[in-house]
Amino acid sequence: MFKIKRPSLCDPEMPLVCLSDFEMYAKEHLPKSTWDYYADGADECCTRDDNLMAYKRIRLHPRMLRDVSVTDMRTTIQGTEISFPIGIAPTAFHCMAWHDGEMSTARAAEAMKTCYIASTYATCSVEEISTAAPDGFRWFQLYVYQNRKLSEHLIHQVEAHGYKAIVLTVDLPYTGKRRNDIRNNFKLPPHLKVKNFNGFFEELNGNEEYGAPANSLDSSISWKDIYWLRSLTQLPIILKGILTKEDAELAVEHGVQGIIVSNHGGRQLDGGPATIDALPEIVETVQGRIEVYLDGGIRTGSDVLKALALGAKCVFIGRPVVWGLAYKGEEGVKEILQILSDEFRLSMALSGCRNISEINRSLIQFSKL
Amino acid sequence: MFKIKRPSLCDPEMPLVCLSDFEMYAKEHLPKSTWDYYADGADECCTRDDNLMAYKRIRLHPRMLRDVSVTDMRTTIQGTEISFPIGIAPTAFHCMAWHDGEMSTARAAEAMKTCYIASTYATCSVEEISTAAPDGFRWFQLYVYQNRKLSEHLIHQVEAHGYKAIVLTVDLPYTGKRRNDIRNNFKLPPHLKVKNFNGFFEELNGNEEYGAPANSLDSSISWKDIYWLRSLTQLPIILKGILTKEDAELAVEHGVQGIIVSNHGGRQLDGGPATIDALPEIVETVQGRIEVYLDGGIRTGSDVLKALALGAKCVFIGRPVVWGLAYKGEEGVKEILQILSDEFRLSMALSGCRNISEINRSLIQFSKL
Amino acid sequence: MFKIKRPSLCDPEMPLVCLSDFEMYAKEHLPKSTWDYYADGADECCTRDDNLMAYKRIRLHPRMLRDVSVTDMRTTIQGTEISFPIGIAPTAFHCMAWHDGEMSTARAAEAMKTCYIASTYATCSVEEISTAAPDGFRWFQLYVYQNRKLSEHLIHQVEAHGYKAIVLTVDLPYTGKRRNDIRNNFKLPPHLKVKNFNGFFEELNGNEEYGAPANSLDSSISWKDIYWLRSLTQLPIILKGILTKEDAELAVEHGVQGIIVSNHGGRQLDGGPATIDALPEIVETVQGRIEVYLDGGIRTGSDVLKALALGAKCVFIGRPVVWGLAYKGEEGVKEILQILSDEFRLSMALSGCRNISEINRSLIQFSKL
Amino acid sequence: MFKIKRPSLCDPEMPLVCLSDFEMYAKEHLPKSTWDYYADGADECCTRDDNLMAYKRIRLHPRMLRDVSVTDMRTTIQGTEISFPIGIAPTAFHCMAWHDGEMSTARAAEAMKTCYIASTYATCSVEEISTAAPDGFRWFQLYVYQNRKLSEHLIHQVEAHGYKAIVLTVDLPYTGKRRNDIRNNFKLPPHLKVKNFNGFFEELNGNEEYGAPANSLDSSISWKDIYWLRSLTQLPIILKGILTKEDAELAVEHGVQGIIVSNHGGRQLDGGPATIDALPEIVETVQGRIEVYLDGGIRTGSDVLKALALGAKCVFIGRPVVWGLAYKGEEGVKEILQILSDEFRLSMALSGCRNISEINRSLIQFSKL
Repeated sequence: MFKIKRPSLCDPEMPLVCLSDFEMYAKEHLPKSTWDYYADGADECCTRDDNLMAYKRIRLHPRMLRDVSVTDMRTTIQGTEISFPIGIAPTAFHCMAWHDGEMSTARAAEAMKTCYIASTYATCSVEEISTAAPDGFRWFQLYVYQNRKLSEHLIHQVEAHGYKAIVLTVDLPYTGKRRNDIRNNFKLPPHLKVKNFNGFFEELNGNEEYGAPANSLDSSISWKDIYWLRSLTQLPIILKGILTKEDAELAVEHGVQGIIVSNHGGRQLDGGPATIDALPEIVETVQGRIEVYLDGGIRTGSDVLKALALGAKCVFIGRPVVWGLAYKGEEGVKEILQILSDEFRLSMALSGCRNISEINRSLIQFSKL
Repeated sequence: MFKIKRPSLCDPEMPLVCLSDFEMYAKEHLPKSTWDYYADGADECCTRDDNLMAYKRIRLHPRMLRDVSVTDMRTTIQGTEISFPIGIAPTAFHCMAWHDGEMSTARAAEAMKTCYIASTYATCSVEEISTAAPDGFRWFQLYVYQNRKLSEHLIHQVEAHGYKAIVLTVDLPYTGKRRNDIRNNFKLPPHLKVKNFNGFFEELNGNEEYGAPANSLDSSISWKDIYWLRSLTQLPIILKGILTKEDAELAVEHGVQGIIVSNHGGRQLDGGPATIDALPEIVETVQGRIEVYLDGGIRTGSDVLKALALGAKCVFIGRPVVWGLAYKGEEGVKEILQILSDEFRLSMALSGCRNISEINRSLIQFSKL
Repeated sequence: MFKIKRPSLCDPEMPLVCLSDFEMYAKEHLPKSTWDYYADGADECCTRDDNLMAYKRIRLHPRMLRDVSVTDMRTTIQGTEISFPIGIAPTAFHCMAWHDGEMSTARAAEAMKTCYIASTYATCSVEEISTAAPDGFRWFQLYVYQNRKLSEHLIHQVEAHGYKAIVLTVDLPYTGKRRNDIRNNFKLPPHLKVKNFNGFFEELNGNEEYGAPANSLDSSISWKDIYWLRSLTQLPIILKGILTKEDAELAVEHGVQGIIVSNHGGRQLDGGPATIDALPEIVETVQGRIEVYLDGGIRTGSDVLKALALGAKCVFIGRPVVWGLAYKGEEGVKEILQILSDEFRLSMALSGCRNISEINRSLIQFSKL
Repeated sequence: MFKIKRPSLCDPEMPLVCLSDFEMYAKEHLPKSTWDYYADGADECCTRDDNLMAYKRIRLHPRMLRDVSVTDMRTTIQGTEISFPIGIAPTAFHCMAWHDGEMSTARAAEAMKTCYIASTYATCSVEEISTAAPDGFRWFQLYVYQNRKLSEHLIHQVEAHGYKAIVLTVDLPYTGKRRNDIRNNFKLPPHLKVKNFNGFFEELNGNEEYGAPANSLDSSISWKDIYWLRSLTQLPIILKGILTKEDAELAVEHGVQGIIVSNHGGRQLDGGPATIDALPEIVETVQGRIEVYLDGGIRTGSDVLKALALGAKCVFIGRPVVWGLAYKGEEGVKEILQILSDEFRLSMALSGCRNISEINRSLIQFSKL
C-alpha cells in the first residue's frame, strides 16, 4: 500500500510515505506567502507546536496475541457511518493550493467515505462542492457575522445542498495574530473569492482581511446565540474550539450535538493547551452525553489511536489535507487519507485492537505521562 | 494596527510586528557594548533566560462564547487609572539608545496613558523628564547611597516635579556580575551623565561604575530603612526586587504600598526564580493587602495575561522599551506599548475576558504546570 | 582489554572502544539501504529512540567499600549457565552484514559462552548455524505463518539440531511501517535467501516482503496458539514482545517459561514504551514465577546493570551484533560482547556488586526518576 | 576585582572573567591528550555532565534588605579556619599543566588561605609540596594499593610533613572507563613521574596505567580497612566518593571524621547521581555527626551557595584548578579561587546572607525542584 512511486520535484524517484513528506513537498512547491498562511500559528507558535509535541509525551500500553487478522476501522459520527475515524477539518482557500480547490477535497472525501467539514471561507461555493461529490458526507463550518443575514443565508444554502451538520467555530471572536501574514501583507489572490460571501460583501475596497471586510465577524457571540442558531436549523450543531471542561458542560446544557476540541491549529490563542492535553477532562465531564471530536497535531496513525484512546469519537485533519491538495489535488488528498488510515489500522492491530470499540483508556500508559 | 510599514536596515520592507522584531533591530543597530549592557544578565544568565521560558511552561485555560465585543483593559495602580496594565520599568541610560533618551520615553508613556518609572540612572534629570511630558503619570526608582543626602535630595526633586511614588530597588546592595560589561570594560559614554547625580559625585576620577563612584551604594540597607524613607516622604513606597513570600509579608508589615516581583531582569542574583514562578506564593501571602506588580520576561500579550491571571495588578517592561527607543525614540516606545497592549487585548478576548476584573487564576491550567 | 588497535577506514589508528564506535563504523561501511534496514524504527522512531534515552533518565545508587576484588557475572537462563547476562537477540539477514552471516554470529556466541537466539529470518539454515558452532547454546526465534506446516517444520528442525528453546515473537501480526525501507524499496539481495523457508515459499514472484511472500504471517495469532505450540514441542517457550503487566500475567497463566520485554527495537508500534520503562510493572506482576528478559536500547554496561537492577534476568542485544559482524564477522561480534561485558563487570564493581545476585532494585535511585 | 586585563592567545585584550573562560583557555593551550585526560568522564559522560546541569535545576529563594554591608565567608573544616568554603580537590599530574605543578597549586592555596588536598598521583612529592608552601593547610588523598606498605609509607610521609587529614578515595576499586584515554593511548609524559611511588613501582615495563602498574590498586578494599587505616594514623579520616545515605551511615558508624560527596568528577561510574542531587539525603542522614563536603560541577559562586544551602560544609574544585594552572601556574590558581570566592560572596550578599551560618535550606526554592 505504501510503496507508491510518483514524480516529485524534490526527487522524482522518492515516494511520499508519510504525512510529513507531503508537508515538505508543499513547502517546496507553494508560493511562500501561501505556505506561510497555511503553516503559521499565532504569536510565538507555542500552541501550534505543542499540538504535535504533546503526542510524543504519551506512551501506549499495547496488548499482544489478540487475533487481529480482521480489523475494522468503521465508526459513526452523528449517526452516519464513516470508513475510519479521520475526517477533514475546515480550512480556508483550497483554490490557493489546487486549481479547483474544495471540489477536489470533496471528491476525495467522498471516495474515501469520510466526513468533510467545508469551511465558510471556501473558494468554491456550497453548491459547487455539493455538485462535485453528490454522494459525499459533509458538514458545514459556520462563523457568525455582524450581518446575521449572511449566517442565515449560509444555513439555508447548506441545508438545501445536503450538508448534515453545522459546525460553529467559537474560538474566533477576533482573528489571531499570525505574524507572517502581517509581514507578507497576506491577501487572497485577486482571481479567487470566498464564494459563500457572494451578494454580501461586494465592496471590499482595501479594508479587507482574509477575503472579508475587516471586523465583519460578530465578536459579541455568546452562549445565547446557540439558541438563535437552533431556531434557524434542525441540523445537528457542533461547537468547534472548546478547550475546557467548563465550556464542555455548557455545551451539553445548551443542547448541542457535539464538540470539536480544537485550538484552531494554534492560530488563535497562543499559550492555550495542546488539544490532546485538553481532551481528557472534557471527555470525563461530558460522560458520553454528546460526541467529542478533536483536531490539531494529528500526523501519524498512532496519534489517531491516542486521541481515540483518550475519548475522541473521531479526529479531523486540517493542514495535511492542504498538503495533499498541493501535491496532486483529489488524488493527493486521497493519498493523505489512505496513508493515515493505513497507519491507524496498523497501530490498532499492533496494540491489539480489532475495532473501534476496543480502543479505550487502558491503551494509555498513564504512569509515564 | 499591526500592518505597519517602515524603513529598516534589516529589510526596509519588513514591518516590525512583535517585540522580538524590535529586539533584532536594536541588536543590529546599537554599538556592541551598548547592546551588551542592556542585554546581559548576571553570570550564566540562567535567571534572565528562565524569566522568558517560564511563561512557555504555563498553559491557559480559555473560555469561549462570552461576548467579547467590548473589551476594557483599563486598570488602576495606586489609585491612578492607566489605559492598560503594562507600565515602563526603570532602566538606565536611555540616551545611549536615543538622543534625547528619557524625555522620549516619558512622552511615549504620557501619550499611551500608562505609568513610567524613571530610573535614578536616567541620563536626563528628573526635571527634564517632567517638563517633556507634563501630564504623564510617573514614579521614581530610588537607590540608597552611602551619602544619604543624595537620596534625600532626589526625593525632594521628584516630589517637586510631580512623581507619584517612590520605587525602592531592594535587590542591589551590590551590582550583579555581568560578564560582558567586564569584558567590554563598559563605561557610560563621555558625552552622557547621570544628571540626577549633579552636585554630588563630581570627581569621578577613573574609579567609577555605571556613571557613579564604585561602591557608592549603601549595602547596609535593611528593613529599618523603610521607616527612614517613610520619614522623608508621604508618597507611596513600592519595593522592587521581592522574590519570596517571607519578604512580601515583611513588606506589608513595614507599611509599604506595593511590591514589584522582580529579579532585576536576571542581572543580579543568577539562580533565583523566574518572576512569574515567584509570583503565586507572594500573591497568596499578600492577600490583597497591598498591590503586587511584576517585571521580567514579558514579551507577548499572553505573557501579560498569565501574569495578571496569577495575581499581578500590573506588569512593567524594561528591555523592550529600550529596543523601541533604539528603533525610533518616542514613536518606537509607543509602538512597543501599542503592539503589546493590542496583543494583550486580543489574548483577553480569545480567553473570554472582557475586562481586567475577569482575569483570575481560573485562566491557568494548573494540571499541566 | 579496551586498548585494541586495528585498521579502520575512518581512522586506521583509532581503536573502537565502545559500542557506538562500531555503530559509526557500520554506518560508514554498509550500503545505505542495508544500513537503513538495520537502523530504522517504525514511523517517527520515537520508541526506537526512547529505548536509549530512557536509560539516561535512570540514576544508579552505588555502594562503596564492598571488596569487589572478585566479581562473577555468570548467571543461568532456563537452567543453563552463561558467562554474563548478555545474549544475542534475533535479527534478520546476517549475510547482508558479513559473508557467512549467522555462522559467524554462532561461533562468537559459542566462544563467549552466551546464548544466541537465531532468527527465523536467518540467511543460514538452522543446520548450518548448528554445525558452525556445535557446542553453542542457542534458542530459536519463531514466527507463525498462515501455512502452519512451516512453523511445525521449523520446530522439528531446531529440536533436531539442539536448539534449547522456542522464542515466539508476539508483536508482529503485521510488519511495522519503516519509512526508509519503503523509500529504498528494500529487498533481500538476490544472492541471499531465507534458508529456513526452503521448500516452502518457492515462487516469490515480485510480491515479496523481507524475503517471504507479503502477508504470509498469520495475524490471527492469539493466546490459544500457545497451547498449539506447546503441543508441538517440549522445549521451553519464551514470548518476545510483551510490554504490559496484563500480558505478562496471561503469559504466566498460559504456561510459558519466559518473557522478553521487547518493542522489536522500536520497529513495530511507534509510541509504545521504552522497554526499560515497561520492565518494572512486569517484574512486579510476574513475581519470579517465570524468567523475564529484556531487549532494546542496551549500549553500555551500565544499561545492563540498570536492566538487571529493575528485574531482568538477562538482556539481549540486537543491532550492536550486526555492527560487530559488519566490522569483522565473528571477531567483531566477540569484541562487542567483550566490550559490553567488561563494561558491565566494571559497572557492577563500581556499584559494589560482586555477583549477579547482589544486583537489585536498591541500586536504583528512585527519587530522581 | 573582576576587570583584570592580561595577555591571552585567544584575544590578548580579553580578560578571563569566569571559570569557563579559563576552561576555554586551557582547552586551547594544552596538548589534546592532556586536555582529554583532565576533561573526560566515564563512558558516555552522563554523570560528568549532570554534575553541572543539576545546579541549573535548583532555584534559590533569596532574601532582601538584610544589611549585607559586612560579609564573612570564613568557615572551619576539621577545626581549621579557611577564608572561604572552597578548597582544592585532589587531581593528578599537575606538572602536565604547569612546569612546577603541585608546588604552584600549594602556594596558591596557601596564599588564599584555603585547604589543598594533594593527590597521591601528584607529580611532586609530598615533601616538595610541603616545602613549597610551608604555612599551607593541606590534606592528603590516599589510595590503597595491593602493596599495603606503600600506603603505610605515604601516611608516614604526610604525617611527617604536616598534612592534617587523610582523604581516602573509596570509589576507585578499578579505574573508570574513559574513552578518550583509551583512544589517545594516554600515558604520563616520560619526563614526569608520580614521585610518591619512588622506591616502589620501579620497573614499569610497559604494563602501566596512569603512572602506576596496571591493577596495582587493592580492589578488595572494604569497610574493615577503615579500622586498618585508623590503626596507622591519628589524623582525621575523610571518605571521598560516598553517594548514598546508606554508606554515609556506615561512614559515621566506622568512626571517620568526614565525607566528601563525590562521583570522581563523573570519571568512575557513569549513570550515578550528580553530587548536588546526592547531597540532601546524606546530610539528612548524617545529622551533623560528621562534616559533609562535596565536589563536582562547581563553576560559579551560586553553585557554592546552593551546595552550602543543601548542607555541605565546604566544596572542593578539581578541573578548574587545573585550568588555572594551565593559564599561569600559581597566579592562575589564585585567580580561579579569587573569582569563585568573589562570586560566592556576591551570591551570599544578593541572597541576604552575611556569614556562613546564615546559609541554610530555606535558601532553596523546593517547590520548583
